[in-house]
Amino acid sequence: MRATVIHAPYDVRVEQRDDPRLLAPTDAIVRVEAACVCGSDLWTYRGVNRVEHPVAMGHEYVGTVEEVGADVRTVRPGQLVVGSFFASDNTCPICRAGYQTSCVHREPVRGAQAELLRVPLADGTLVATPERPDDDLLPGLLTASDVLGTGWFGARAAEAGPGKTVVVVGDGAVGLLAVLAAAQLGAEQVIAMSRHAPRQELARAFGATEVVAERGDEGVERVRELTDGLGAHSVVEAVGTPDSMSQALGAVRAGGHVGVVGLPHGVDLPAVDMFYRHVHWSGGPAPVRRYLPELLDLVLERRIDPARVFDLELSLDDAAEGYAAMDERRAIKALLRP
Amino acid sequence: MRATVIHAPYDVRVEQRDDPRLLAPTDAIVRVEAACVCGSDLWTYRGVNRVEHPVAMGHEYVGTVEEVGADVRTVRPGQLVVGSFFASDNTCPICRAGYQTSCVHREPVRGAQAELLRVPLADGTLVATPERPDDDLLPGLLTASDVLGTGWFGARAAEAGPGKTVVVVGDGAVGLLAVLAAAQLGAEQVIAMSRHAPRQELARAFGATEVVAERGDEGVERVRELTDGLGAHSVVEAVGTPDSMSQALGAVRAGGHVGVVGLPHGVDLPAVDMFYRHVHWSGGPAPVRRYLPELLDLVLERRIDPARVFDLELSLDDAAEGYAAMDERRAIKALLRP
Repeated sequence: MRATVIHAPYDVRVEQRDDPRLLAPTDAIVRVEAACVCGSDLWTYRGVNRVEHPVAMGHEYVGTVEEVGADVRTVRPGQLVVGSFFASDNTCPICRAGYQTSCVHREPVRGAQAELLRVPLADGTLVATPERPDDDLLPGLLTASDVLGTGWFGARAAEAGPGKTVVVVGDGAVGLLAVLAAAQLGAEQVIAMSRHAPRQELARAFGATEVVAERGDEGVERVRELTDGLGAHSVVEAVGTPDSMSQALGAVRAGGHVGVVGLPHGVDLPAVDMFYRHVHWSGGPAPVRRYLPELLDLVLERRIDPARVFDLELSLDDAAEGYAAMDERRAIKALLRP
Repeated sequence: MRATVIHAPYDVRVEQRDDPRLLAPTDAIVRVEAACVCGSDLWTYRGVNRVEHPVAMGHEYVGTVEEVGADVRTVRPGQLVVGSFFASDNTCPICRAGYQTSCVHREPVRGAQAELLRVPLADGTLVATPERPDDDLLPGLLTASDVLGTGWFGARAAEAGPGKTVVVVGDGAVGLLAVLAAAQLGAEQVIAMSRHAPRQELARAFGATEVVAERGDEGVERVRELTDGLGAHSVVEAVGTPDSMSQALGAVRAGGHVGVVGLPHGVDLPAVDMFYRHVHWSGGPAPVRRYLPELLDLVLERRIDPARVFDLELSLDDAAEGYAAMDERRAIKALLRP
């Protein structure tokens, strides 16, 4: 099969690899119909995460079940499935509490930018659609695998909901879909922080009521002006740098909630300030599996159109161009078709 | 009147001062029937918080209303009242969300270790008992003013409740009352971390199902052994040092909640670790006012006996001995009777 492999920073190749095989009776093999490049893949692409040896890339996928192990009960060959970027048993106490990405048996799913993918713990990881959906829905279903699920989790961790003011820090695909999530969850005011016209436009299309282009102290000041001087009830942090975290903590009101979905890089949190302002802080790698049933329904019923984050569609063979376009911010998110 | 004043580290005196007067139409003057020394007073006593000039001490009180300003509606002279250590209007959006200690009009209440006390924003700060309770209930009512309310908030912030395992880090009066709160809120397992026999005993009397004497990595290991290797659902941090915070973060399970009521001193939080483990972190100066009605009922109905934290009772004139006894850990908490 053809698969996307990174050999070194900025060296992404699509090459011939052995087909994956069932390794455990709880595995499934999925024929990938669409995959994509994640913002987090760029950490590897840029060499921030070391590349020691060639690594198969990709962890977002929608596809058809090709084969299942003997113990798999909830999905069968021929079904269209979406799954999380971490495999989970979905039965341990941590999964049952809704944190499947911290499952005691979790395993990363890797190698989705390929024709075929092995998914461990298939019953606890994959969700099948009731029937084969129209092809135009595949990109939307694909977003549920990570980027939509992550934006959704950020909005929920920030306790976005009716009557709430929500600020989203970060205008990447996750941030933009956190805007969609906040609007969908009924937030009264959704403030997107973005300086890029096409992203500002998409944020508005997804339900942002205001856009704040300022950053740092000015950005915080602008959010306070828009919120009676108090700050926002809910802030989604979808970047992960010290600056963006500081922006998020500055924008939240006393007693408010910060939902963090940008993987923190070099961030220490100021406990005293957070304490005196009653800030709630939570987040993590999104437990996408928790939200998959709900999100697939929303996409299948065409109530949301998260696929608008894909502004570049390529053949799998051109995966390298997808990485380059996202790295250079020429594209928000690249879809790959095997 | 007689009032407790600190002049310098370790120099606490009870001396004659002018009676407080109404300064605003929303003030009340309260004749203090019982006050006490707080763990946080020791930061000043020990000189960690600078003493620039003589300061009237005390912020925990139960007493009888002596006089109210023209705008006060909900309390009247002769009523027995308990109030928070921060005055709040109890009507602003932050108060209505339950964070009265971050009220937009908040003011500290200071000088409660005295015969008379001015309480600002009386309507939003004080709660009166339905009738004059028996005298033996006064110490319990007094705890609601801070130490019980703080332990209670810690347990709520940690989401203690039925089916939950709760760890309490810190065996001061706040930690011990967090144990009581967790048990009262229906927690299944309450683990008190304490090395001091009399405090271990009181923790058990308040509802601790286990006591862990180990600290650091060993303490964390012991908690994991008691929780199927997962860690606790809920952890109350009632100390505020880097070590105790690290203990709290180590003891919580993935997806669990840390409720912080020990004022952090020199603590930076490790965002990446908290992120990967889905830790929820929240806390702050306890919004005691939120819980006062509920806590006064529990004390008046004799369903809880938080006054057991007072293991030293003194005349106000002997306030200095109360400070010394707590500083030297000869007493858990000292009650003062004017």
